[in-house]
Amino acid sequence: MLPKKSERFGKSSSELDNLFALSGQNEVISFAAGYPANELFPKKELDRAFKVRSTKVEASFYQYGEVLGYTPLRKKIVNYANNCLKINCAVENIMLTQGAQQGINLLAEYFLDVGDGIVVEAPSYIGALEAFEAKAPAFYEVPVREDGMDMDVLEETLMQHDVKLIYTIPNFQNPTGYCMSLAKRKQLVNLAQKYGVLVVEDDPYRELRFSGESLPTIKSFDTEGNVVTLGSFSKILSPALRTGWMIGDKNLIKALSNVRLTQDCQPSNIVSEMIDEYLESNDLFEHIQDMNKFYSQRKNVMIKALQANLPSGCSVSNPEGGFFIWVTLPENIDSNVLLQSNAGVTFISSGALFVVSHEKNHMRLNFSGVSPTLIMQGCKQLCCTIEEAIKKIAVVA
Amino acid sequence: MLPKKSERFGKSSSELDNLFALSGQNEVISFAAGYPANELFPKKELDRAFKVRSTKVEASFYQYGEVLGYTPLRKKIVNYANNCLKINCAVENIMLTQGAQQGINLLAEYFLDVGDGIVVEAPSYIGALEAFEAKAPAFYEVPVREDGMDMDVLEETLMQHDVKLIYTIPNFQNPTGYCMSLAKRKQLVNLAQKYGVLVVEDDPYRELRFSGESLPTIKSFDTEGNVVTLGSFSKILSPALRTGWMIGDKNLIKALSNVRLTQDCQPSNIVSEMIDEYLESNDLFEHIQDMNKFYSQRKNVMIKALQANLPSGCSVSNPEGGFFIWVTLPENIDSNVLLQSNAGVTFISSGALFVVSHEKNHMRLNFSGVSPTLIMQGCKQLCCTIEEAIKKIAVVA
Repeated sequence: MLPKKSERFGKSSSELDNLFALSGQNEVISFAAGYPANELFPKKELDRAFKVRSTKVEASFYQYGEVLGYTPLRKKIVNYANNCLKINCAVENIMLTQGAQQGINLLAEYFLDVGDGIVVEAPSYIGALEAFEAKAPAFYEVPVREDGMDMDVLEETLMQHDVKLIYTIPNFQNPTGYCMSLAKRKQLVNLAQKYGVLVVEDDPYRELRFSGESLPTIKSFDTEGNVVTLGSFSKILSPALRTGWMIGDKNLIKALSNVRLTQDCQPSNIVSEMIDEYLESNDLFEHIQDMNKFYSQRKNVMIKALQANLPSGCSVSNPEGGFFIWVTLPENIDSNVLLQSNAGVTFISSGALFVVSHEKNHMRLNFSGVSPTLIMQGCKQLCCTIEEAIKKIAVVA
Repeated sequence: MLPKKSERFGKSSSELDNLFALSGQNEVISFAAGYPANELFPKKELDRAFKVRSTKVEASFYQYGEVLGYTPLRKKIVNYANNCLKINCAVENIMLTQGAQQGINLLAEYFLDVGDGIVVEAPSYIGALEAFEAKAPAFYEVPVREDGMDMDVLEETLMQHDVKLIYTIPNFQNPTGYCMSLAKRKQLVNLAQKYGVLVVEDDPYRELRFSGESLPTIKSFDTEGNVVTLGSFSKILSPALRTGWMIGDKNLIKALSNVRLTQDCQPSNIVSEMIDEYLESNDLFEHIQDMNKFYSQRKNVMIKALQANLPSGCSVSNPEGGFFIWVTLPENIDSNVLLQSNAGVTFISSGALFVVSHEKNHMRLNFSGVSPTLIMQGCKQLCCTIEEAIKKIAVVA
């Protein structure tokens, strides 16, 4: 007989696990995943990066490294932060993480005790919600509008409740695809400073912009150290590298590195050196431009297919980048019922993405990992299912 | 202004961080680390493993993989477990982890709430102690004898207190080098079943046996799923691979995989494929035999140097394997004072390794990562410092 698990793990199933399961089904068209397209991995260049670097280095290539990660790679992220993100930082401000997910988890672990207040966007990324949920916090939802979090609701929440942490995805938000406006970014920093709250800026899709203009990071307006920015190579290079980064106040990064030592000690130097060599021998931004053309096409195919086939009463987001399209159905349609009934196409139903209100009438559709032909086919099929569901409810009513 | 961190992180410094800092000092002779010798990494073979595998695979090599890790590698661990560890298991019982450290952390996260009871050996591995400490549990120390945990003290503890988890390193214990006897292994399983406690069997040094006979894993006596075994490629292949494994009850592994999804999603397939290819094209056990000859020599040099130079009143363990030698000084000598005063040689002082009693008069010395010449030089120097300290105290007394 085993001892009881922590009460923080009340649920026996995991939405994130379900998501990966949905993503892996071959017999269906999967709009559920958040995977980059296999075709886009610069395999030749990454393979070469390993070979080049491994011939240059000593056996200590295979030894323990630093908890914050391989310094030359952290320096490259400093350059990127200074030049592209307009974040004034040094190597002490950077920690390499196992994907951005580890960054979220480290911050949750370090700041949250059971019952602590935290603000999340409604809807939000299921992986972050579950990382926070493992700390059994008090969740407060703030709706995401087309220009980002509703700042009035946010300030009201901060006035009424003790909140330690605000989690936001400012660019091509997962799952809505919305971007936070410039004004709201500044406002968010001001609110965070006024109420002494940490802002976790999760920004994995930033560079995947197909049109429109890039906005400065929230962190770039932060003068007091209230914002931590998370980035990742998963979407712009390869998720198998399991490498992201965290940019924050140097004292905070130091404290988090001590937490990280107890979690998995440090990142792999092998993979870090591969990335470092790739960045030295290739133009990542050129690669990203190619990706954006490719993804933009897929997004357009999906938007067209949805606009042509969605019954009236439904709406569709049209993001300028990222991986996802957000579909809102009539209020009386439960997207999870659709998902269960519709064997041929999978997607993410919205219930679990609204951590408090559990709004059910939305769907997150991924276009990055699906071919245009399958996107068209899947969207048609999905729209038929939606139409039938609406008719059925009309008859019942 | 930042919000307050969790109260679980009361300390501002980390002993594990100090350890890594001590390990990295070049101007001193460092007996502090727990590093494998650089000379022993099979760099050529590991480099080749990447090259071979990367030419065989598709671009999906760089895609997301499975949360439990690359299945072919998990199957090899199943074979090893069945044949060498006498653990009857299948692929569902195995999770690949970022070193054994992640296994410890996942178990702590899943089982422990603030104040929960946990038994650790006294002394124990600082990385585990700090991973547990992050959950703010109630620690109970059980002394380690030359044949393992004191089972009488353990049973008394289990009778008197609610305990969820017992953490033990049965082979070449870190820091003492002691091994748990066969009888005690069986007894531990019986106690765990009787009191409904989880046993975490941390076994990274198992294969590093220079002499004597290998004993069955604690897990091999477990019929009820009360034991989880942790292993690692860090010491027998390379720590930069950041790959260990966890063997446990399949329902528990499934539950932990959901926790792991929120922590860092999954391990890197790139590194897993490297290891898998290495294991297919090389004889790891032959490599381990070579390592053991090499380390055995270093251990003998250290034992001799200590026996020749240690003043009376001190004792030294003589382990049959592993990475560490344990020195016990007269009770009135504080090893941390020695460490601070003795600029030329570093080691791990014992205070933090006894999580409750903080016994100060011991030292953990590592021999695996230091050349024989430096071992001799360092031991002489260290013994002089000890002798002086003893004399000084005698004069004061």
